[in-house]
Amino acid sequence: MDSFDYSHILTKAVDELSDSRSYKGLFHQHKEGDPLPSSTSLQRIVELSRAILFPGYFGNSTVNKHTVPYHIGVNVECLYNLLIEQIQAGLCFGQENNGLKIQEESSRETAALLAARFIGKLPELRRILATDVEAAYYGDPAATCFGEIISCYPAIRAISNYRIAHELLMLGVPLIPRIITEMAHSETGIDIHPGAQIGHHFTIDHGTGVVIGATCIIGNNVKLYQGVTLGAKSFPLDDNGNPIKGIPRHPILENDVIVYSNATILGRVTIGRGATVGGNIWVTEDVPEGAKIAQHKR
Amino acid sequence: MDSFDYSHILTKAVDELSDSRSYKGLFHQHKEGDPLPSSTSLQRIVELSRAILFPGYFGNSTVNKHTVPYHIGVNVECLYNLLIEQIQAGLCFGQENNGLKIQEESSRETAALLAARFIGKLPELRRILATDVEAAYYGDPAATCFGEIISCYPAIRAISNYRIAHELLMLGVPLIPRIITEMAHSETGIDIHPGAQIGHHFTIDHGTGVVIGATCIIGNNVKLYQGVTLGAKSFPLDDNGNPIKGIPRHPILENDVIVYSNATILGRVTIGRGATVGGNIWVTEDVPEGAKIAQHKR
Amino acid sequence: MDSFDYSHILTKAVDELSDSRSYKGLFHQHKEGDPLPSSTSLQRIVELSRAILFPGYFGNSTVNKHTVPYHIGVNVECLYNLLIEQIQAGLCFGQENNGLKIQEESSRETAALLAARFIGKLPELRRILATDVEAAYYGDPAATCFGEIISCYPAIRAISNYRIAHELLMLGVPLIPRIITEMAHSETGIDIHPGAQIGHHFTIDHGTGVVIGATCIIGNNVKLYQGVTLGAKSFPLDDNGNPIKGIPRHPILENDVIVYSNATILGRVTIGRGATVGGNIWVTEDVPEGAKIAQHKR
Amino acid sequence: MDSFDYSHILTKAVDELSDSRSYKGLFHQHKEGDPLPSSTSLQRIVELSRAILFPGYFGNSTVNKHTVPYHIGVNVECLYNLLIEQIQAGLCFGQENNGLKIQEESSRETAALLAARFIGKLPELRRILATDVEAAYYGDPAATCFGEIISCYPAIRAISNYRIAHELLMLGVPLIPRIITEMAHSETGIDIHPGAQIGHHFTIDHGTGVVIGATCIIGNNVKLYQGVTLGAKSFPLDDNGNPIKGIPRHPILENDVIVYSNATILGRVTIGRGATVGGNIWVTEDVPEGAKIAQHKR
Amino acid sequence: MDSFDYSHILTKAVDELSDSRSYKGLFHQHKEGDPLPSSTSLQRIVELSRAILFPGYFGNSTVNKHTVPYHIGVNVECLYNLLIEQIQAGLCFGQENNGLKIQEESSRETAALLAARFIGKLPELRRILATDVEAAYYGDPAATCFGEIISCYPAIRAISNYRIAHELLMLGVPLIPRIITEMAHSETGIDIHPGAQIGHHFTIDHGTGVVIGATCIIGNNVKLYQGVTLGAKSFPLDDNGNPIKGIPRHPILENDVIVYSNATILGRVTIGRGATVGGNIWVTEDVPEGAKIAQHKR
Amino acid sequence: MDSFDYSHILTKAVDELSDSRSYKGLFHQHKEGDPLPSSTSLQRIVELSRAILFPGYFGNSTVNKHTVPYHIGVNVECLYNLLIEQIQAGLCFGQENNGLKIQEESSRETAALLAARFIGKLPELRRILATDVEAAYYGDPAATCFGEIISCYPAIRAISNYRIAHELLMLGVPLIPRIITEMAHSETGIDIHPGAQIGHHFTIDHGTGVVIGATCIIGNNVKLYQGVTLGAKSFPLDDNGNPIKGIPRHPILENDVIVYSNATILGRVTIGRGATVGGNIWVTEDVPEGAKIAQHKR
Repeated sequence: MDSFDYSHILTKAVDELSDSRSYKGLFHQHKEGDPLPSSTSLQRIVELSRAILFPGYFGNSTVNKHTVPYHIGVNVECLYNLLIEQIQAGLCFGQENNGLKIQEESSRETAALLAARFIGKLPELRRILATDVEAAYYGDPAATCFGEIISCYPAIRAISNYRIAHELLMLGVPLIPRIITEMAHSETGIDIHPGAQIGHHFTIDHGTGVVIGATCIIGNNVKLYQGVTLGAKSFPLDDNGNPIKGIPRHPILENDVIVYSNATILGRVTIGRGATVGGNIWVTEDVPEGAKIAQHKR
Repeated sequence: MDSFDYSHILTKAVDELSDSRSYKGLFHQHKEGDPLPSSTSLQRIVELSRAILFPGYFGNSTVNKHTVPYHIGVNVECLYNLLIEQIQAGLCFGQENNGLKIQEESSRETAALLAARFIGKLPELRRILATDVEAAYYGDPAATCFGEIISCYPAIRAISNYRIAHELLMLGVPLIPRIITEMAHSETGIDIHPGAQIGHHFTIDHGTGVVIGATCIIGNNVKLYQGVTLGAKSFPLDDNGNPIKGIPRHPILENDVIVYSNATILGRVTIGRGATVGGNIWVTEDVPEGAKIAQHKR
Repeated sequence: MDSFDYSHILTKAVDELSDSRSYKGLFHQHKEGDPLPSSTSLQRIVELSRAILFPGYFGNSTVNKHTVPYHIGVNVECLYNLLIEQIQAGLCFGQENNGLKIQEESSRETAALLAARFIGKLPELRRILATDVEAAYYGDPAATCFGEIISCYPAIRAISNYRIAHELLMLGVPLIPRIITEMAHSETGIDIHPGAQIGHHFTIDHGTGVVIGATCIIGNNVKLYQGVTLGAKSFPLDDNGNPIKGIPRHPILENDVIVYSNATILGRVTIGRGATVGGNIWVTEDVPEGAKIAQHKR
Repeated sequence: MDSFDYSHILTKAVDELSDSRSYKGLFHQHKEGDPLPSSTSLQRIVELSRAILFPGYFGNSTVNKHTVPYHIGVNVECLYNLLIEQIQAGLCFGQENNGLKIQEESSRETAALLAARFIGKLPELRRILATDVEAAYYGDPAATCFGEIISCYPAIRAISNYRIAHELLMLGVPLIPRIITEMAHSETGIDIHPGAQIGHHFTIDHGTGVVIGATCIIGNNVKLYQGVTLGAKSFPLDDNGNPIKGIPRHPILENDVIVYSNATILGRVTIGRGATVGGNIWVTEDVPEGAKIAQHKR
Repeated sequence: MDSFDYSHILTKAVDELSDSRSYKGLFHQHKEGDPLPSSTSLQRIVELSRAILFPGYFGNSTVNKHTVPYHIGVNVECLYNLLIEQIQAGLCFGQENNGLKIQEESSRETAALLAARFIGKLPELRRILATDVEAAYYGDPAATCFGEIISCYPAIRAISNYRIAHELLMLGVPLIPRIITEMAHSETGIDIHPGAQIGHHFTIDHGTGVVIGATCIIGNNVKLYQGVTLGAKSFPLDDNGNPIKGIPRHPILENDVIVYSNATILGRVTIGRGATVGGNIWVTEDVPEGAKIAQHKR
Repeated sequence: MDSFDYSHILTKAVDELSDSRSYKGLFHQHKEGDPLPSSTSLQRIVELSRAILFPGYFGNSTVNKHTVPYHIGVNVECLYNLLIEQIQAGLCFGQENNGLKIQEESSRETAALLAARFIGKLPELRRILATDVEAAYYGDPAATCFGEIISCYPAIRAISNYRIAHELLMLGVPLIPRIITEMAHSETGIDIHPGAQIGHHFTIDHGTGVVIGATCIIGNNVKLYQGVTLGAKSFPLDDNGNPIKGIPRHPILENDVIVYSNATILGRVTIGRGATVGGNIWVTEDVPEGAKIAQHKR
């Protein structure tokens, strides 16, 4: 007897696992010809966007001022093609969930339009990301130059992904934006929902553990430290006891707010212009303009 | 004189670093023919498990309902072969530390048996992970569909790795389970020890910074937020001043408990059924059923 | 009309993005022939260093006691060559920011000298990392052997990168050290600035969310838990309102200090020898030798 | 002056090379959304076909009799998807040259039909390739087993590619078949045009330098040695002096013919059943049944 | 009706192709745990051998005189491990064909012994390959240095593979040697059977189309040009009409013979010491010492 | 006793193989900092050149008429950088053999100049390759379009590599040109020495086995078939019995010559304008203008 032959166990497992009742709800029934959301392609989309927005810092090529237009031209074209595919993947995914049935060509056509619109927004994205780089530089005595911030600060990585994802979400693309911000979440520990609205000169120091919820509104010149949560306190349930989607439930931070490490701000409260929230505290009510709140002294 | 020739420095460093006294305790003396634990193989094991458990969401192939059995069949076989190798690597590692000496064939035979048993558990793993997906969906107003949760929620990634690792640990496999949960820790910031016991419908929101210790017992329908620690308060030392291994030292959370962000629960305390633990607090004593505890108001 | 032709949008975006005014300050003007900082090369540098420091645990090869010198010899040579390139990349980057103009040969020569010096420090690095492994083992009842700690504890990964980066920073290499510690930050959620000074037998449990600032001084036998911040409280501004660089602004932790999870210690305060800082608290003043401070009971 | 700055030369070259007059006829004007012929995909198609036809010899997996159906199922699905894409690429390429304009959807639909038909032919392909393996084995005293022939004889590689390509050509697929036979030409030095018709039990010994033209007809049990040419002698020109396409111009070899090394047979001649053609000779006339022709003795 | 659904065709093909009667003789029934012959591993074996034999010409590393021993040490160890696996794969393959049944451990043990013996022959292999390099250099006015010959002459590539494969065959390894010479055949068009015996200072100019049969005996200082065949004229059949294996049937070339391009020498004839065989001729009889034979003048 | 321990055999082999006397003449003593000739880089150089010369046929990108300049710009820059490195590698290699000692900077400067000059020749290379494509198309009744010829005819691949290599050789680059033509030799079986001079509208049908020697001169509109050798008959030796380098010793083919398969033309003979050389013959004397020579009839 061959003690290695466990093929009956394997065969039984394959049979059970292939029984369609066992994977109901956990199976993505792929439609022939549709593209699949691909984390590799989305990673590439983010890298290409970074290479376009910050020339010379990302990508393999040794770009110089003579060759910038060539590189941007090729990267934009490549980004456009990848975006069409992934936006179409997102649209197909969305349809499925909506029970809608769109023609494949029409979804491809829509995807091409949205991809082009996204690319049309890149100059604006560069302008606003430049303000985030400035904010990080002037807010950190340990920063030695813009280049250091662009190439290795996790905040810039997370904010870039967020700003890319937010544009895609505004264009109506399902699923894909969330995957893009979760990529940054995994790399940086900073979890910004693509639905949040965030002004210019935004920065996050260190960043691990930061959570910014889907309905947050953040003004200009806001700075957060590591471990800050801008979350929901509770959420109303519908008649079936399920959470009702889409209700504003996260904080509003007005311009010039600073929130120190591990502070938790919950619910649709407003932190007024110029207010400072101290570390390790729990805030569930409005904070007036210019106020400074902190943990009780030990 | 060639100013580049620092070969004497390099040679001296090589000599010192090759001196066996210098790497005592830091060296893995590999036995000829034994497989090595390989993070690449373990990553592949996790990916194959995900592709089997959630068909159509992971893996390169465009699976559809006609081809599900083929894909699961190939993935199960591939998983089986990789598991044999890595379980054997774990067993060899374990022996070494135990000063035991097992025959290589016998370790391979044992590995094959354990790998088959693990695969026999996959249908059950799928059933319980389905409850975790449900819990994540119904607990998050920002979730748009099961697909979004399966493809990008870090909690599902961390809980999947934990449930896979826990099964392997229960089968008696050394080292490998811990490497698998540390992979998820690195990707998600959620650190669940494979030794913990966790019921169905478990979910973690955002998740960065969550720590669940080796002797935790968690009931059904439990929800944790980011930054929650379920840790040990202190641990008894043996006569040599070293910590005694294996003593229950982490919390018990009964069914339907919720713990908010950055709360820290330490020691073998029990949080009673249906209790709610507020954010940013420090708990070192039992909490009664249905209680709601929170930080002092500022 | 072909509804897919959005080439005018793409062309317009390429033109705007290639306009040098739009990328001012965000562009790395690469000098012909200079190496570029490369995260792939730096990742390889870290992996080679690990393979040299902990033989048999990292790297693809099946090293044994007969072949240790061959492997270390080849790895040291490979590390040396990669270091020369990346140190030169860092030096070029530094020059640019300093407005200095160094000859390329001279930067390469300097890089070779620094690379050799770094390699000369590897035996010492191994000695101190061995103490960190010991500290992790004796401090964690869940640890089963040194091998488990070396192969999968995030603290060892983060501390290794920090110790490598710190040596490079001490040698005067710009930029590269920070990229190396940020790699570990991304993988482990532990953010140690390469400028910090840290003694032997240092350990961090779980680790996600730990922040150790640039001017921290940490003694021997210190242990931190997850979520601990050793940060700056505030920093003086110069006449232009920009932060002044290089001023000591982070805590000093003397020997034998323990800091529990999510504690925040800010500013140039001193935590005295043997003191214990409880979890989730906020410390901005000196703590005397041997003191135990904790959050107010709820 | 920087002696390295040759950017004016590069810029001038880019301008000239981008001038559309300079690449007229050498440019493949790609239509948005069409797949491109891809040698990587075609290589994969050939490898998948081999893995299906000769289970256990090709492909990474460790197939056994329990898992054969899973592997063939997955490989067939993967082959089907790649074929659709590459057949569509071929069809688009064909259209372009024909000045035809087919709707993209219709080309994809056609490609799917042709891909399915090709897969329907695989069982027949396996039957005929089995006869080729037999012929190689019984014709070579150096062959030790079928396995050796399947895994490393260049003749089997070249004949497999030819038989795959011939089926695709019969189905009306442009370009792709030729690329597939040229792949085998590059690997083996055996150049079989996909248009040739070749019976069962066909074999080629050594093979380098063999050429079999587009209109050849080869019977059953035919054996060729290395360097044999079955070519065209001359071809009629049209009124513009261009060769007229599609005219039978290559030899017919009836059943049981043997042609020795470096023989050259040119034009629409017939080599009769059972004839033997000696090495290094030049044949431009019919050879009767059973004849043996050879070079003049020196 | 969905015109893309050809799943019935695919399913039918999968069923037919999975029917074990259809792949009888074409299937490699893999035994659980045995290594598979792998062209990737064998390619790596050849590359490692080249890197060891010709230090500095092959392999990624920048070897210099200080680091030669490290590189050779690592390469030898890596070669040893790969050889054990592939020799074992060959032995398993051989057993299967012989109907023998060897214990797996014993095959691994045998493989390790043979791998070690092969490595013990490497110094001798280097000595004889050095004579081949010399012969190529002094025989070709176009050669500019030894380095050019080592790095790009196809003859050296083919002869290296042959000499490696011949050693393995002499050690009794089945299958693997033939795969190694067929690799060189594919790359260079030079087909040397591993069974041939070839003396020192052997060279082949250009080489495409050269065939050297399994029972050839070639002396020292022999030179062949492209397209030369040293083949069998005919071979005796056994009672079943199958070729009898192992009978000497290929030419003997004594020392100092030159054979010009496209000459064909067939059968167990002897070309005497110092003889010259002209191009494009057909030789089936002995040629005396020092003779010069050529094609009839046109 | 452990029957697997053959470390003494391995150690002895390493020692012998590391003894510098054993690898004298077979060792490339690499100078610190010099680039190495790299077949991967050279392959990339050839691919980039093809992508530039034949836009849309090679390379991964989906180039269209709007984006041609971007792609050519990026490819030219990338080609330029790779060429500098590989030309410098060739120059260093050349120096070594010449016993010359050039400063590294100066070799890099020279390499940059030569790389720029090569790129300046690309438009001319495209013009002449266009004539070769034409010649292949009009000379082959089986060719269906220019695209088929560009994408899969081995002649175009071999002639492209030759024309690239010839330019580099004319610029004075050592070694690299020969490696480039040997790459094509390996892929196509066509061996064209980079030193040969070849006119426009050159084509080779099938091609396997063609050899064109270093001092050949070939006019315009010449066509060769497979297996044709244009070689040297013999070469004068110097006083040491070594061949004298650089003497014209290969044939001259004037315009409009056709040479049929397996013909061998040797020595500095002239084949006059418009002559036809039949297959399988051996030519060592001049052939007059317009003559047709052929093998004796059997």
